[in-house]
Amino acid sequence: MSINKNYKPSPKEQLSVEQIFSGLTKGNVRALSEAITLIESKKSEDHANAIDLINKCLPHSGNSIRIGITGVPGVGKSTFIEALGEYIIQSTGKKVAVLAIDPSSKVSKGSILGDKTRMQKLSANEKAFIRPSASAGSLGGVANATRESILLCEAAGYEVILIETVGVGQSETEVAEMVDFFLLLMLAGAGDELQGIKRGIMEMADAIFINKAEGDNLKNSEKAAIQYRSAIHLFPPKENLWTPVVDICSAIESKNIDKAWSVIDDFYQSTNNSGMFSQVRAKQNEYWFVKNTELLIQQKIFTNAELLKLHEELKQKVKLGEVSPLVASVEFVSKI
Amino acid sequence: MSINKNYKPSPKEQLSVEQIFSGLTKGNVRALSEAITLIESKKSEDHANAIDLINKCLPHSGNSIRIGITGVPGVGKSTFIEALGEYIIQSTGKKVAVLAIDPSSKVSKGSILGDKTRMQKLSANEKAFIRPSASAGSLGGVANATRESILLCEAAGYEVILIETVGVGQSETEVAEMVDFFLLLMLAGAGDELQGIKRGIMEMADAIFINKAEGDNLKNSEKAAIQYRSAIHLFPPKENLWTPVVDICSAIESKNIDKAWSVIDDFYQSTNNSGMFSQVRAKQNEYWFVKNTELLIQQKIFTNAELLKLHEELKQKVKLGEVSPLVASVEFVSKI
Repeated sequence: MSINKNYKPSPKEQLSVEQIFSGLTKGNVRALSEAITLIESKKSEDHANAIDLINKCLPHSGNSIRIGITGVPGVGKSTFIEALGEYIIQSTGKKVAVLAIDPSSKVSKGSILGDKTRMQKLSANEKAFIRPSASAGSLGGVANATRESILLCEAAGYEVILIETVGVGQSETEVAEMVDFFLLLMLAGAGDELQGIKRGIMEMADAIFINKAEGDNLKNSEKAAIQYRSAIHLFPPKENLWTPVVDICSAIESKNIDKAWSVIDDFYQSTNNSGMFSQVRAKQNEYWFVKNTELLIQQKIFTNAELLKLHEELKQKVKLGEVSPLVASVEFVSKI
Repeated sequence: MSINKNYKPSPKEQLSVEQIFSGLTKGNVRALSEAITLIESKKSEDHANAIDLINKCLPHSGNSIRIGITGVPGVGKSTFIEALGEYIIQSTGKKVAVLAIDPSSKVSKGSILGDKTRMQKLSANEKAFIRPSASAGSLGGVANATRESILLCEAAGYEVILIETVGVGQSETEVAEMVDFFLLLMLAGAGDELQGIKRGIMEMADAIFINKAEGDNLKNSEKAAIQYRSAIHLFPPKENLWTPVVDICSAIESKNIDKAWSVIDDFYQSTNNSGMFSQVRAKQNEYWFVKNTELLIQQKIFTNAELLKLHEELKQKVKLGEVSPLVASVEFVSKI
């Protein structure tokens, strides 16, 4: 073997699917990162490999609890996630993965640095894995990329998956469909703070935690918790038959973070015993299959520039009331 | 012209689209019924005529307020609608159309008799028009048929359209997307009564009326109204920026039915002045165009028996966790 003095190994030598899978299942963080990058790839030549990898990982997936965390900007999601992640690792030894989902792709386009700044302590913990959101253009779209990434993290041995909704109002319903437990972070003092939450989110929550319950804000937070607890009582039951829990916390003081985990653990015990846990996951799988299929069909149709143009024109006419939605849709579909 | 003594004119001589349109716009009830029947027709040979009719009616549509009314079975929807319809006709002189929507098609398959029994007094009122739900199989589906029927009723001069959700839990989100104002009827005593309401419905309501606020039940109804009013206060604002109203009523005693109408009227004045009324309608039109298009594409694809079979098989595998949703959808779409 001759030695090339000028040889510089490429900083990112392409790993094969087999190597990625092998490394990932041994808990290798680099392999997991490569795996997720592959899933998120916009290049069609990567799609076959992505599918191959998902198929390999699927039998090794599922052994986790998936927790969605949402709330308006400023409510303290990052601080909360960091505190919760640290607590879980410390008290259970479980590995924790944090994935962000931002379908609008407006917030930090995949800058790992950005997230590491937000959760410095947690990202230094070797049992934590933090990954910012995919951006638009991945196979099947952003939500799908995140969802399949969950499977990869599970195959890599992460037993707690925290999914943070970055960006406001667009992705919560999708996040709720990919997690077992949905936690809503709120602040006392309602009013303006609620502006950013989409209607229907409160009723999706399995737990509501009023954050920043510290110092002068403590009394207000306790009052808010009482109000929300009464409101929850008026809601119809959730499909998973779980009664949502309302409590206060202070992420920055690590107060009641243990309570948050204990609620999640109760939830898991309860829904696992009743069989509801698996039932909901099966339904979610079905939901994503149907949704993905619709999305991919749409994508296929709109590679045709003529059809895309016609769709936009008809949509405009419909908005202006010049043609009825039904008639416009019939016209469009007749051209496919 | 020879006379055929055995000639019996067919009881339902087919009216042409032109005749239907002409009669409908003059307020002829039979023409309106024929028009809706045509829209609901499952026969593909009727579809071209249905589209022709909708196109003719569209410029004459829109001049109404569209009100959705929902609540669990037993809450008193029919009694409430009858009382409200009677009150509106009596106090404003406006014509009122009542359409029912039941996408499950489980409840009375289009039996006009059924509905007339439920709302005998109102159906005898010449300014009222009552129509039960379309059943599955109409062009674009049940919700679409109902939606286009709204346009026909408006072209026939009905200025108040009441849309009743029959059947529980499935159609409320669709009804909310086809009305200007969404009214939720509840009963005091929560608990079991809430079982039938889908999560998210409460947050969609523009008004919540606690019905059967009479006799021994009056105090409980007043308490319930106070609780719901507090809960509403905690919800994020609605897209239409309207603050939902909570009140009690007794449909059977016609108590506070005038209040219900006055709330609806306030809503119209307020949202019309702000431009929100038209804005929301334009968005709804867009929603139905996109939704219809997806539905029609699906229908087109599933006329292929092989594809339908493959879809079902993949869906089963996905539910059982044997293949990931993304991989299954990619496989399915590759066969189209």
